[in-house]
Amino acid sequence: MKVSRRALLAGAAGAVALGKTAVTQAPPATSDPTKVRGKPSRALGQRAPAEKPQRQVRPGASSSGTPHQDLYGTITPSDLHFERHHAGVPEIDPKSYTLLIHGMVERPMMFTLADLKRFPAVSRVHFLECSGNFGGRAGSADITPQQVAGLTSTSEWTGVALATLFREVGVRPQAKWFLAEGQDAALLTRSIPVSKAYDDALIAYGQNGEAIRPEQGYPARLFLPGWEGNASVKWLRRIELSDRPFMTREETSKYTDPMADGSARMFSFLMDARSLITYPAYPVTLTRGWVEINGIAWSGSGKIQRVDVSTDGGATWAHARLQEPVLSKAHTRFRHLWNWAGGEAVIMSRAVDETGYMQPARTELIAMRGAGSVGYHLNPITGWLIRSDGTVVFRQEQWT
Amino acid sequence: MKVSRRALLAGAAGAVALGKTAVTQAPPATSDPTKVRGKPSRALGQRAPAEKPQRQVRPGASSSGTPHQDLYGTITPSDLHFERHHAGVPEIDPKSYTLLIHGMVERPMMFTLADLKRFPAVSRVHFLECSGNFGGRAGSADITPQQVAGLTSTSEWTGVALATLFREVGVRPQAKWFLAEGQDAALLTRSIPVSKAYDDALIAYGQNGEAIRPEQGYPARLFLPGWEGNASVKWLRRIELSDRPFMTREETSKYTDPMADGSARMFSFLMDARSLITYPAYPVTLTRGWVEINGIAWSGSGKIQRVDVSTDGGATWAHARLQEPVLSKAHTRFRHLWNWAGGEAVIMSRAVDETGYMQPARTELIAMRGAGSVGYHLNPITGWLIRSDGTVVFRQEQWT
Repeated sequence: MKVSRRALLAGAAGAVALGKTAVTQAPPATSDPTKVRGKPSRALGQRAPAEKPQRQVRPGASSSGTPHQDLYGTITPSDLHFERHHAGVPEIDPKSYTLLIHGMVERPMMFTLADLKRFPAVSRVHFLECSGNFGGRAGSADITPQQVAGLTSTSEWTGVALATLFREVGVRPQAKWFLAEGQDAALLTRSIPVSKAYDDALIAYGQNGEAIRPEQGYPARLFLPGWEGNASVKWLRRIELSDRPFMTREETSKYTDPMADGSARMFSFLMDARSLITYPAYPVTLTRGWVEINGIAWSGSGKIQRVDVSTDGGATWAHARLQEPVLSKAHTRFRHLWNWAGGEAVIMSRAVDETGYMQPARTELIAMRGAGSVGYHLNPITGWLIRSDGTVVFRQEQWT
Repeated sequence: MKVSRRALLAGAAGAVALGKTAVTQAPPATSDPTKVRGKPSRALGQRAPAEKPQRQVRPGASSSGTPHQDLYGTITPSDLHFERHHAGVPEIDPKSYTLLIHGMVERPMMFTLADLKRFPAVSRVHFLECSGNFGGRAGSADITPQQVAGLTSTSEWTGVALATLFREVGVRPQAKWFLAEGQDAALLTRSIPVSKAYDDALIAYGQNGEAIRPEQGYPARLFLPGWEGNASVKWLRRIELSDRPFMTREETSKYTDPMADGSARMFSFLMDARSLITYPAYPVTLTRGWVEINGIAWSGSGKIQRVDVSTDGGATWAHARLQEPVLSKAHTRFRHLWNWAGGEAVIMSRAVDETGYMQPARTELIAMRGAGSVGYHLNPITGWLIRSDGTVVFRQEQWT
């Protein structure tokens, strides 16, 4: 990078001369951006032509993952937020949208979208993650951060606190659960403890400053911070209060966690602490010298307290730097400066949240869940192998 | 909103029956979203068809403003971030991009984009605002928040601290200013105090999680938190260190503030505290009852400490609720619940920052600057008149 003044001035002069010569020979318009007027203002911006981040659409097209390897910081652009749906993305007219709240309440009510927006609003930055994240092709080596764990994203969500609506309808003391029902063709239904509503649940209609996107539940969705994405029912049309869970298909045949002793863990909403190194990662080829290892860490239990990074396959760990402000139940960017001398190395990350919970090793998870466990609520420590030639591959044994 | 159970069940049954009937008569595919499979996953999401937020492109197309009336929370979607340029948006090949740092330094250096990304990164949420904001059509009544003050936006910016690069090149102690030069056809140049680099200046390449957008300086720009947008030179190609300012066109003929005594305030970088009510605002028609007045407040000096809201034309003021976390030099959403009884009312907001600075009344600004002042660095208290019929118009006398 070091250059002499003389070379610099010669270079600058050269560029100008080239520009002048080229004008007489009809140069491409963009050959020297200082010589041509640029594009005018536009009603909607677009990405630079060289930037092509994309969600990865999975087979069956019922989900798509966030390209973490292309991203910085903590906010996920809304058009790159992961999606997961069971019967496609419905198109709902916001003018005819209603949310019904009934069951064990004093005053059953139907709210229009305008009604919801009239209540006091709250905005909070939170991650949303599918409980199937980390359950995909983790046996492969040539997979990107997007393929390892693309089903998590972070947005600034805006909506009305569900507690506000529950006070409005007068939820009865004996109501301990509520059913949330979506307006998509899957009519997705989940049973949620009422306590979550009084904790931090939202009916969200805003995402990253604007209306939530169709695949995120437009015009309004349930949002349960820190809980598995499936429970945050999208395109929400109905909430029914009850004294017991409804035992729907999505919480009996699916979204339960088989345990090593043959039992099943139900209503396992919480997304435990986890982390993912997003750089360096496949398909990067690293060059020797200083490199800032970085990635994201998050926990459904609250704030990330610490992220440990190992550059020797887990033998020793160092504390990474955390991007401030560290927010509760939100992606937290961690960074760790490392001088790669050129040998083979395995880099790994391990999150610890404010409850003291530490992200487990894969072997610990298998001991708890059994080797044949299906892929829900997996949060194993993962890593990347840097080969001597600088190529990087995922380092995690096959889960099942 | 109150409905009986009977009506609700009848309504639900009615919807189902309608759906069944309609199937035999080839209904529009979206008539009942629970009856048709929705759209599959996509590589890039799109807005809901009913949502059409747009930047307002000003005459001459050298700027466009953020539609604050359509937004929630604090993050501005990147394609709605305001833009301002003096010779259009250049198209720059990231592969050939370089940043030269020279002048009063020990080791002049040229950095590629990859070089910049190899340094330790920082991400911070900050507003960016054109010093001409609030200087537009403020004499009109039928203008939206976007037309009043669309030239401010907030993003999570990622880049390398300029201090890091200054240490790399060895800035000499006698260097007190640096020139920042853009690679657009305006070759925009500004002189910046070196102290700002050691405070919080960034060379930014990331915005809201992804690469910065072309109109924001792709692939890399100077970013000076809290200072007038013009000084955060976009498409940055050169930084030259010196012991004095360079007195460029953009800081002599423009971007100075005429004062009442005939002198001119130069290098007036700081954007003082200001606020804007974004709802209710023109062209909303309000209905009686509880309404949450809300808007954004920000200060180039640090955090917003307090926002006062008046619903009686400034006679009395109440403290608004601030969205947490309140971040330094970033839009802060404020909210104030108000019961509109139906009479004519003027609502106003007034920001106070952590230095104790209070947003001034227009009369105070005129006393400082003179009635004929050009429109830079204006931050008068503004308001909205709610008429008895619920229509809302901007309430601010003509500036000049």
